[in-house]
Amino acid sequence: MMFGVTGDLARKKLMPAVYDLANRGLLPPAFALTGFARREWGREDFAQVVHDSVKKYARTPWRQETWDQLSEGIRFVQGSFDDPAAFAELKRTVERLDERRGTGGNHAFYLSIPPSAFPQVIGQLRDSGLSDPQEGTWRRVVIEKPFGSDLKTANALNEVVSEVFPPDAVFRIDHYLGKETVQNLLALRFANQLFEPMWNSQYIDHVQITMAEDIGINGRAGYYDGIGAARDVIQNHLLQLLALTAMEEPASFDAADLRAEKEKVLRAVTLPPDLSVSTARGQYTDGWRGGERVGAFLEEDGIAPDSITETYAAIKVEIPNRRWNGTPFYLRAGKRLGRRVTEIALVFKKAPSPYFQQIEGSDVGTNALVIRVQPDEGVTLKFGSKVPGTTMEVRDVTMDFAYGNAFTDESPEAYERLILDVLLGDPPLFPRHQEVASSWQILDPITAFWATQGQPEQYRSGTWGPVGADDMMARDGRTWRRP
Amino acid sequence: MMFGVTGDLARKKLMPAVYDLANRGLLPPAFALTGFARREWGREDFAQVVHDSVKKYARTPWRQETWDQLSEGIRFVQGSFDDPAAFAELKRTVERLDERRGTGGNHAFYLSIPPSAFPQVIGQLRDSGLSDPQEGTWRRVVIEKPFGSDLKTANALNEVVSEVFPPDAVFRIDHYLGKETVQNLLALRFANQLFEPMWNSQYIDHVQITMAEDIGINGRAGYYDGIGAARDVIQNHLLQLLALTAMEEPASFDAADLRAEKEKVLRAVTLPPDLSVSTARGQYTDGWRGGERVGAFLEEDGIAPDSITETYAAIKVEIPNRRWNGTPFYLRAGKRLGRRVTEIALVFKKAPSPYFQQIEGSDVGTNALVIRVQPDEGVTLKFGSKVPGTTMEVRDVTMDFAYGNAFTDESPEAYERLILDVLLGDPPLFPRHQEVASSWQILDPITAFWATQGQPEQYRSGTWGPVGADDMMARDGRTWRRP
Repeated sequence: MMFGVTGDLARKKLMPAVYDLANRGLLPPAFALTGFARREWGREDFAQVVHDSVKKYARTPWRQETWDQLSEGIRFVQGSFDDPAAFAELKRTVERLDERRGTGGNHAFYLSIPPSAFPQVIGQLRDSGLSDPQEGTWRRVVIEKPFGSDLKTANALNEVVSEVFPPDAVFRIDHYLGKETVQNLLALRFANQLFEPMWNSQYIDHVQITMAEDIGINGRAGYYDGIGAARDVIQNHLLQLLALTAMEEPASFDAADLRAEKEKVLRAVTLPPDLSVSTARGQYTDGWRGGERVGAFLEEDGIAPDSITETYAAIKVEIPNRRWNGTPFYLRAGKRLGRRVTEIALVFKKAPSPYFQQIEGSDVGTNALVIRVQPDEGVTLKFGSKVPGTTMEVRDVTMDFAYGNAFTDESPEAYERLILDVLLGDPPLFPRHQEVASSWQILDPITAFWATQGQPEQYRSGTWGPVGADDMMARDGRTWRRP
Repeated sequence: MMFGVTGDLARKKLMPAVYDLANRGLLPPAFALTGFARREWGREDFAQVVHDSVKKYARTPWRQETWDQLSEGIRFVQGSFDDPAAFAELKRTVERLDERRGTGGNHAFYLSIPPSAFPQVIGQLRDSGLSDPQEGTWRRVVIEKPFGSDLKTANALNEVVSEVFPPDAVFRIDHYLGKETVQNLLALRFANQLFEPMWNSQYIDHVQITMAEDIGINGRAGYYDGIGAARDVIQNHLLQLLALTAMEEPASFDAADLRAEKEKVLRAVTLPPDLSVSTARGQYTDGWRGGERVGAFLEEDGIAPDSITETYAAIKVEIPNRRWNGTPFYLRAGKRLGRRVTEIALVFKKAPSPYFQQIEGSDVGTNALVIRVQPDEGVTLKFGSKVPGTTMEVRDVTMDFAYGNAFTDESPEAYERLILDVLLGDPPLFPRHQEVASSWQILDPITAFWATQGQPEQYRSGTWGPVGADDMMARDGRTWRRP
């Protein structure tokens, strides 16, 4: 069952992902998709919407028989979230489907709806009996970020959900962390002898995790104002990438083992004592995006002219455990930056070579292992190499590996993976509430501090963020990478 | 002074290198070149030979003024190596040159001659007084490999040379080990934090050093028969590459410090007790080179049909010191192999990951760092990466760095470097006799053992050597790289 089927996400990502999965033969033939929305649609209207979205956004080729098979299982129930009768009708619909299609009676509820609607919808699922699994069947609920806007609201949301669904039945989707990225990181770290021996504070000077977007808020003022870059991106995406980068090797890649390691490292994260020197934030002003002039954040429709919401956030965190003590992690996220890129850069200490350290002005020792998450997923290794010629001059060179070049078959879309994992009940990629809570615990003191600091620093659209962020690094004798 | 000016090496490499150095402004303007040979030439004839060789083989563009300047210093002395009068004439010629050109009275003797002629020529240099430096000047002698054919002949040769020249004045040229390769290796290992921590037996399973040639003996039967691949290539090139790969970090890159580390590691090399299982050798039979049919070694002109000279040699050595104990080094050299390539491959141990080690049939853990010496000098890193898809399948991928792509200005030719270093008296690249002796000490038991074993195994031209070489690795549970 899908709630919020009229939204952009459902149309552009979820419906095409369902079709692509069917086309790849990964869905059970009895799979059925029921939409629920206020819209005055019949079954045919909804089927048409799915059809059009698949035709437009699916990644696999159109196959009429896939569609015929899939569309037979499509249903639609019209109603609003506060109408018990509509949920009763929904229950009858899926029960009939269970009988007719032989679906086996397993139901997943995909809540592609605003967080404010969660309590109501989840209450209706309970009251209607939809959330009750019958003997031998399962019920699963999928929720999208944001999982609250601080620890308190996240806990409240969790209480609402966990009153009705047991922890194992709750799938928190961080689509950004598609299975590929996570598994690539696990394979890179643990399938190789090469990297792990140096993956610690003895060799690594610091880690930079960057999520840069070139777009602005794209008309989503209602969502973004009051949220900002730290809550929107750092709390979930970047702290998850940090957890995967910094965690110990799990006993297995099963959900429980993987989550245990991620939680352990997130709980070990601490903030430096003085947040005024270990964080930075900014708002974009007008400037350029590509060749196009773009306006300032404070002039966007729906943004208050005195908004203190940050569109750029940079924070420094520490992990004073045996592996990482002394190696800070710098996290930054921003909109309207120079380029769209997400990466994890492990920057190595300078080589302890008496000879090479004497060479003035050489870039020696700034080795870096860069895990490129998007776009162009891959790995870059930066190291020093001798410049041809009579002197022993060393310059930085890079070697690259791109998943796209190495493997010809295209990676499945993140949502395909995640939907399939929900259906298979394979949860390693879905953060447990404890992880969400730990992330808010890290972030809450920072957002609380920022709330007392008035307007963020301004930075021009198309640049790499506010001067304060560069100062923050410069105080530590470091610089941000220009990815 | 150049002895052996009518040879291929002088014409194709040495003369052009001198011109290129002059063209790059690296030679003193007073530089003079005197040829000595039996040929009935005058100064003009010799100048013409140099001119033609420069025009044909120089790497830098033709500049008339460079040539005019250089050719003014060209002289020729006709004579044979057993004629004291010719050496007296040679002495007068260079003395006049010293006066006229203001060369400063420094002389380098480049002996591009067969080893059998060394005693005679060096004796003449002494008897004529040419080898005596006057106050404030230097005399240097350059000799090319082979430096003997075993420890005994190498010692004898060294005695002949060192009776006349002090150790610092002897430059043993291993052109193959041009300064670039050596310095690239030093920079890669010691200018970076990334590699050195894993550069030991804790992480490296074994090292393969390969010099494969696609050509046969190319008509050089007189030189090659009785010498073979081990003496021709392993004793000098491959053991030098081994020394640079395995040595500790030198206190500086000065000659004395660098040689000390190379000697230390060469002296630590040991052979496994049973040479019948730790070595392999072969002779090429007929087969293919590129698209062309080629004949067998035993059918080459000048090779005895029962020659036991090997054209392929593979040996296993051990370095039971603190860094390398338990990590064997495999060295192989051969002619008429599949491709021309020289490389050093550090093959890592399998990742000690409980999860990934369970994955059957996966290539996990065969990480390798490959230093490509020629052609296409660079570095390749081979590691495991997840195959996109639902399972955790890992496959080998590579990342490359090529010096040629990273740096636009062409590297100087090896001989340019070496000649310049002789003139500058900068000897770190030239092996001292002790290194040569250590190398023969490693190799002598092997060649002595082979001498008792009759005909080497045959292998087809264009393949990767005899089956015995593969067996040798298979007994250790390893395989040769196919570079």
